[in-house]
Amino acid sequence: MARIVMKFGGTSMAGIERIRNVAARVKREVDAGNQVAVVVSAMAGETDRLVGFCREASSLYDAKEYDVVVSAGEQITSGLLAIALQAAGCKARSWLGWQLPINTSDAHGSARIGEIDTAALDASLADGVVAVIPGFQGVADGQRVTTLGRGGSDTSAVAMAAAMKADRCDIYTDVDGVYTTDPRIVPRARKLSKVTYEEMLELASVGAKVLQTRSVGLAMKENVRVRVLSSFEDGDTNDGHPLSGQRGTLIVGEEEIDDMERQLITGIAHDKNEAKITLTQVSDRPGSVAAIFAPLADAGINVDMIVQNVAHSTGSTDVTFTVPAADLARSLDVLDKAKDAIGYATIVHDTRVAKVSVVGVGMRSHAGVASTMFTTLGERGINIQAIATSEIKVSVLIEEDYTELAVRVLHTAYGLDAEGAA
Amino acid sequence: MARIVMKFGGTSMAGIERIRNVAARVKREVDAGNQVAVVVSAMAGETDRLVGFCREASSLYDAKEYDVVVSAGEQITSGLLAIALQAAGCKARSWLGWQLPINTSDAHGSARIGEIDTAALDASLADGVVAVIPGFQGVADGQRVTTLGRGGSDTSAVAMAAAMKADRCDIYTDVDGVYTTDPRIVPRARKLSKVTYEEMLELASVGAKVLQTRSVGLAMKENVRVRVLSSFEDGDTNDGHPLSGQRGTLIVGEEEIDDMERQLITGIAHDKNEAKITLTQVSDRPGSVAAIFAPLADAGINVDMIVQNVAHSTGSTDVTFTVPAADLARSLDVLDKAKDAIGYATIVHDTRVAKVSVVGVGMRSHAGVASTMFTTLGERGINIQAIATSEIKVSVLIEEDYTELAVRVLHTAYGLDAEGAA
Repeated sequence: MARIVMKFGGTSMAGIERIRNVAARVKREVDAGNQVAVVVSAMAGETDRLVGFCREASSLYDAKEYDVVVSAGEQITSGLLAIALQAAGCKARSWLGWQLPINTSDAHGSARIGEIDTAALDASLADGVVAVIPGFQGVADGQRVTTLGRGGSDTSAVAMAAAMKADRCDIYTDVDGVYTTDPRIVPRARKLSKVTYEEMLELASVGAKVLQTRSVGLAMKENVRVRVLSSFEDGDTNDGHPLSGQRGTLIVGEEEIDDMERQLITGIAHDKNEAKITLTQVSDRPGSVAAIFAPLADAGINVDMIVQNVAHSTGSTDVTFTVPAADLARSLDVLDKAKDAIGYATIVHDTRVAKVSVVGVGMRSHAGVASTMFTTLGERGINIQAIATSEIKVSVLIEEDYTELAVRVLHTAYGLDAEGAA
Repeated sequence: MARIVMKFGGTSMAGIERIRNVAARVKREVDAGNQVAVVVSAMAGETDRLVGFCREASSLYDAKEYDVVVSAGEQITSGLLAIALQAAGCKARSWLGWQLPINTSDAHGSARIGEIDTAALDASLADGVVAVIPGFQGVADGQRVTTLGRGGSDTSAVAMAAAMKADRCDIYTDVDGVYTTDPRIVPRARKLSKVTYEEMLELASVGAKVLQTRSVGLAMKENVRVRVLSSFEDGDTNDGHPLSGQRGTLIVGEEEIDDMERQLITGIAHDKNEAKITLTQVSDRPGSVAAIFAPLADAGINVDMIVQNVAHSTGSTDVTFTVPAADLARSLDVLDKAKDAIGYATIVHDTRVAKVSVVGVGMRSHAGVASTMFTTLGERGINIQAIATSEIKVSVLIEEDYTELAVRVLHTAYGLDAEGAA
């Protein structure tokens, strides 16, 4: 017997026929003797509908009331899945955020999960009752409904798995796992059977949108084994091992990946949603760089790559950095207002850039990863505009038009292409 | 300063534009210095949508989970109205059923309201915060969400008014009050400015569908002054007396209606949703009538009018009664299975019947009301198939085709026609 958390996204919950399919999938885990908690999203489109209502009611809506409104979407699907499970012959009940309770901070609209009381849940699971838990919601001080922010249901699932000491947290989604890169760009991309939390964090935050980043961080902190797999592909009956864990991608700690499995590079990510800003002739004196980034941080703008050129002989320097493209206009406004404080000549900006990253825990023990990247791109005439590195990642900023070419040549250069595939 | 409960139905909550209108109406009561609690229904059509999901998920849905699903409709509108009120400049917050709490029985899907804890609410109202309360929902044992059954929001409003010791419970609906009869049948029907609880119960249960019957019974028990008025007609600004209570119809105890206002007959109701069943040659012995009605009661079928003819010389009798037309098939099935126990020759049934009732507390002190009714109908050649009377009501069963004619001639006969109107 194992304890399993299964999480289903909005596409899997879109309509009763699909909810029935989810119930059938849950029933297989129950029939195999497992204790199961299911975390559900709202029906696809429902959260957008509810958020739209709030915005229409007031552009400055009260986050407490917003949470009351938008949490209803998951409340509905949790009740419906409980009904569908019962119809399929499983004992089941829904547990709303305030019922367990799932305690959160009172940061309405983007609350953080604190302690989850599982006493009542444990007793119910021990009675063979499937727990159906609306994702994305909790309760602050036992009083007011909270939500975790968009995509929060992944985080709900991981938090439940941690609280329940679950053996596995299976995230059913509309892709069948995590790939070495975007298969739409590289048809020979391979599905990874295992990836570490750290790699997943880098892959997720740089564009491989499979899991909410926050949920991966929580899984790493709580050491929850997360598996990402497709809710539409029916591998269970194909391989005859419903619990084999061979489907999808397992996200685990580095210690669970043995040397045989370890690759130098795990994957190539790309992100076209960055914008590049250059401030020219910034005076080269102490505090001038802080004067740039402090007001941006105050405005909640997340600066990513930063490059400071060698000082001109004039005693000034150019500073280049990237921000999310969605924040570009606001960033320019902030920098314009801070012009005197910073002291620069002009602002140049460019949204036609892309960040391409190679990610892998293996690079910790290997030199030459960055060098291979620069050489490979250079051979194809792709100009590197900025570079950023971390322990397990090297990112470069390039002209957007070269994104797909860069991803393809890097995928080949690091030996990631699947053999024999298209 | 007064304490007021305002209740708005689904049509008033259908979309943000209408919710904004509701907020404006609530604000007028707040600006007049009143403490206000607002009870809201789900958006028109939303409850049907959610009920439809439950039925689609399983014809034998679990009422506990059904309540989780369908209560979401009012949760959404309560949050949205709170946002709209804040946008209009009122302090406001939503209070879900479990938050107040509104304690109910655990009869999921048709729970009865028990005690409502108003301690937190009182403090909030005293701070000038408008309370927005989702109708139709409560909580059983502080644990599970319950709903009150369709139309339950009227009952929520009256129960809140009783618990809060409100001065008035204003039910905003899509009609502008209670009429002497259906204005679509009798254009000269008059709007009643006052009606007693008892009369309203008889008018509601026999077809004047303005308020949920249960809410009227509760108002009578708790002595809550209920006013029914239109949410779309803007009388407030016309008469310059926003609190005059002159709009709509006030539903009050008999003692609040003085002799000048008292009418012999308050209204004429009709109901086409009954079916007539006759059992022929029922043996005229002790217990035979009980043998008919006991199995119907066991099946939860509500028998209304009952007529037992004088015994034939043969020692048998015909028994005629009415049931809701929707329960006819089930009733026939029950009676067929009980044929031996009852002992009858044949079953005859007819759905082409209508019940027409004259209602008024004034008839208590006046003889001749029933006689006027029979004479009036007889003069028009309308045959009476069954008669039932209560202290304040006389009902007759007639052929359905004559319904409108019967209502019109009775409305005139009892002097209810408005003067000068069309």
